[in-house]
Amino acid sequence: MDETAGSPTPDPIYVLRHSAAHILGAAVLELYPDARYADGPPVEDPPGFYYDFELSHRITEDDLPAIEARMLKIIAANPGFEQQVIPRADAIRLFAERNQKFKVDILENDITADEVSVYRTGEFLDLCRGPHLDSAIQIGAVKLLKLGGAYWRKDEKNAQLQRVYGTAWPTTTELEQYLSDLAEAEKRDHKRLGRDLKLFALDDRAGLGNVIWLPNGATVRREIERWVVDEELARGYQHVVTPHLAKLDLYRQSGHYPLYEDSMFPPMHLESGEELELRPMNCPHHIMVYQQDLRSYRDLPLRIAEVGQNYRYEKSGELMGMIRVRSFALNDAHIFCTAASLQDEIVAAVELAQYFMRTLGVKMNRYRLSIRDEVKAKWVGSDEQWSHAQNALIAALDQVGEPYDVGTGEAAFYGPKIDFQIRDLQRREFTNSTVQVDFQLPERFDLEYVAEDGTRQRPIMIHRGAVGAMERIIAYLIELYGGAFPTWLAPVQVVLVPVTDAQLEYARGVAATLRSLRLRVEVDERSERMGRKVRDAEVRKVPYIAVIGGREMEGGTVAVRGRGAEQTVESVDDFAARVGREVATRAT
Amino acid sequence: MDETAGSPTPDPIYVLRHSAAHILGAAVLELYPDARYADGPPVEDPPGFYYDFELSHRITEDDLPAIEARMLKIIAANPGFEQQVIPRADAIRLFAERNQKFKVDILENDITADEVSVYRTGEFLDLCRGPHLDSAIQIGAVKLLKLGGAYWRKDEKNAQLQRVYGTAWPTTTELEQYLSDLAEAEKRDHKRLGRDLKLFALDDRAGLGNVIWLPNGATVRREIERWVVDEELARGYQHVVTPHLAKLDLYRQSGHYPLYEDSMFPPMHLESGEELELRPMNCPHHIMVYQQDLRSYRDLPLRIAEVGQNYRYEKSGELMGMIRVRSFALNDAHIFCTAASLQDEIVAAVELAQYFMRTLGVKMNRYRLSIRDEVKAKWVGSDEQWSHAQNALIAALDQVGEPYDVGTGEAAFYGPKIDFQIRDLQRREFTNSTVQVDFQLPERFDLEYVAEDGTRQRPIMIHRGAVGAMERIIAYLIELYGGAFPTWLAPVQVVLVPVTDAQLEYARGVAATLRSLRLRVEVDERSERMGRKVRDAEVRKVPYIAVIGGREMEGGTVAVRGRGAEQTVESVDDFAARVGREVATRAT
Repeated sequence: MDETAGSPTPDPIYVLRHSAAHILGAAVLELYPDARYADGPPVEDPPGFYYDFELSHRITEDDLPAIEARMLKIIAANPGFEQQVIPRADAIRLFAERNQKFKVDILENDITADEVSVYRTGEFLDLCRGPHLDSAIQIGAVKLLKLGGAYWRKDEKNAQLQRVYGTAWPTTTELEQYLSDLAEAEKRDHKRLGRDLKLFALDDRAGLGNVIWLPNGATVRREIERWVVDEELARGYQHVVTPHLAKLDLYRQSGHYPLYEDSMFPPMHLESGEELELRPMNCPHHIMVYQQDLRSYRDLPLRIAEVGQNYRYEKSGELMGMIRVRSFALNDAHIFCTAASLQDEIVAAVELAQYFMRTLGVKMNRYRLSIRDEVKAKWVGSDEQWSHAQNALIAALDQVGEPYDVGTGEAAFYGPKIDFQIRDLQRREFTNSTVQVDFQLPERFDLEYVAEDGTRQRPIMIHRGAVGAMERIIAYLIELYGGAFPTWLAPVQVVLVPVTDAQLEYARGVAATLRSLRLRVEVDERSERMGRKVRDAEVRKVPYIAVIGGREMEGGTVAVRGRGAEQTVESVDDFAARVGREVATRAT
Repeated sequence: MDETAGSPTPDPIYVLRHSAAHILGAAVLELYPDARYADGPPVEDPPGFYYDFELSHRITEDDLPAIEARMLKIIAANPGFEQQVIPRADAIRLFAERNQKFKVDILENDITADEVSVYRTGEFLDLCRGPHLDSAIQIGAVKLLKLGGAYWRKDEKNAQLQRVYGTAWPTTTELEQYLSDLAEAEKRDHKRLGRDLKLFALDDRAGLGNVIWLPNGATVRREIERWVVDEELARGYQHVVTPHLAKLDLYRQSGHYPLYEDSMFPPMHLESGEELELRPMNCPHHIMVYQQDLRSYRDLPLRIAEVGQNYRYEKSGELMGMIRVRSFALNDAHIFCTAASLQDEIVAAVELAQYFMRTLGVKMNRYRLSIRDEVKAKWVGSDEQWSHAQNALIAALDQVGEPYDVGTGEAAFYGPKIDFQIRDLQRREFTNSTVQVDFQLPERFDLEYVAEDGTRQRPIMIHRGAVGAMERIIAYLIELYGGAFPTWLAPVQVVLVPVTDAQLEYARGVAATLRSLRLRVEVDERSERMGRKVRDAEVRKVPYIAVIGGREMEGGTVAVRGRGAEQTVESVDDFAARVGREVATRAT
């Protein structure tokens, strides 16, 4: 089965991996004849494929080499992928003969067509629309990666399946590059570095998926948060702080409840009868801010921003470090504006997100414009509103000069949007920033402003994420920099290493000079040897290690080792000015 | 009845107000002979007294002048307050004859002594231990203030009572001063100013008692928060950010649950069986931070600080503006230290709180040392620990040179403490800062550090509040300054008023100069007359209003009106430098 089946121009790498999945199915069936194969699609994460099996043998990591060897053997024999279109009844019989109940289940319950497409690869038969490679030898390189579990039709009441993940590439070179990137990514894994560098902790006692920011991580976050807030203020946003909870009725009015009930925490039932809910998003809170005054056209655009806590009840199995959590501090804003200023506001929002990402050293991978299709019933708002908003988004993207993909029919029912995609070290893509037009919430909350002609008008609302959740972006930065943060973000920016106690007082004076520039400085006063102190600071990935011996003390200098740089001897003032400048410009 | 009865040296003002309460009882009984009087103590808030009555007539504000007039008539007749000690049975008979069921209830159910003390004031008889004034004329001035409600024995199942509040003073001058202060306090009421100056809002949709910080209030809070965090970091605190919730088990382990269950939010019951609780305090979270590493004596003192959200389920009737809320951002820290450094840490904590309050312009009203009494069973920790900690607190208070009251037996069962009392404009006293030694939580969480000799030792824990809750301190500051914040805290620091559009561009340039110093500046670009613009900025209590006409534009100057100051004409640079300096020094 193929999730990309039917798409008009399948990506060649998907076709290759889809074919590799069939080879995996064939190999497992050869090794374990009682295996019943369920789904085997190509996937994005990890870039490769999987196949799900029901199997009496419990597959372990130790079995993977043998399965992989069998796959290579099959590929070497270079079978083709032969498509046949046959009557559905015949297909049911074929799979029933093979005892493949999952395929029979699909044929009987999901498919109504008279004829179905099957593919043969040697002895292996799969229910599949393709397309596939011409022959197996085109799979230049294949590697099994890991094991997982699943339930048939994702339902815990159904059969439990064993999932085997693999990756496949046109050439061995590409596979090796990927595996080396993967190994590097594992070294840079934010969970590992978060622990080693004492950035954050996860402690079940605080509830699953709730991050404890240790002093080092809290420093990184504070630097980012203050910078984001100051920059937004300078760009005309008004920052607010709103409660992290609300009556459930607020989300009934917004329509989030019961729509998103599954990803909301259970409400608290107060004695008074109130149902209180940890907020899954803060749009309704910013709407409450809007509603505290009668707004006039002079107040618009009104840009309400916050770095505020949001709560989502993610499944425990899906929680991952700081990337997938149950509570997160979101850099979020809602812009209330007129149709006339919509495009300017979108341009400004895109440029702000670009500025943030550029400064952090994060590369935007892809811009994606989601617009509506022509099926009318699905969308709130008028045709005029939609085309105005979509044109504004397109014009904004053109104005900032970014190429973008268009997803027709991918807009949310309440408005079109732009997503800013980022790719992590494991080449997984995620949406970090977004500019989303919303025609619905202003209606549901009956928002108004007094127009220049004195009439009451409905503002347009823009949801705008720029830096995203603090947890996610900092997890990303940890991996991007392998924990060696740019100086302005480093928890400790300079470690001073006095060679002997004779330089201790002098080192403290140097520290005071640096601290007067608001630099984060430590003096390593331990009675350890210099080499040990330098090594310890290196392990902590401190940007600057300044050694101070007798000569430095006499000369009013420090001997500085920057990360990856030669040691230089500089006057204390020069060094302080240099690091101060680096921090002030947020150099990466 | 008198809550202060039996205390060895009653405050004369309490005696006066207690006697005034008896006069109130007498007056109401004369006017409403069916009144049954319950409790009538002197109280601190408002500084005065009340009496509770069961009464067929519904007393309204309109009745207060008549009751007050009757009180003055009684006082003018100058009855004495005559004490009699009589058999309890006689007292029961006397009050039963008068149909005073509440007094009979007390005599029958609360008192076991054979003899009781009653006081006669003219015809009015009360069950009371005194002491009282010699005669009523000593009540120099009396005023009834407001009405309230209560239940007999504070139980909703009992009779509902009407409460009349009054105040009494030795002289009319003192009463007038108090009433004028009260009127001023009402003008400065933070709820009123919070609305008028758009500082914060309370919106029931966000749940009762949860504050929405509007842009202006969020600015004040941000300035205070950043300053507090930076100052604490400079003084060796390590700031963390911890989850606002935890499994209920964490509070079972800490002992807060079920002890404080009444003031905790109801737990959320997750599908997994977890009980998740909005945290009522963050001590256990900081303990989790402590526990993320094996700590050594070299790591101590470890000062974990946070400005973090806490949740208390206050009764809806007790909620008040930003002073009494259900969620608040607490500036809180926990210091883990050895016995040897305890005193230094306490001194540093006291000095930090003093620095914060001095800078904010807040006067500490009173220091209060709470120590244990000699009843052994009530206290955790050894005698040695207690006397060491109490001596450290006393030595610290002596070292910082502050006079203080001692409350023997007022310590919490887990350790002694110092409270820093503040008095608000309505002369209500509250605890804003505290330094609390805790012997219990380190035990309950089995906290350890590796001592210099390699043994595992238990650290001492200090709970330290300095600025307190953001909501409460800012509510206090709003009232203290009547909304006219010191410049560094003012939401808008400078409003530039171009006299005509010809000065608009120049004004924008001046704004840019001021903003480059990080000042918060607005240019009033409306096409209003200058006088109107100035008045509007004054109403908003903006510290500096700089008018720019043709002459100023030519001269490169601004015509500045500071609050309550003469207008001065200054060069833009001089003005910018002056305001910048004022902000940098946080002048009040």
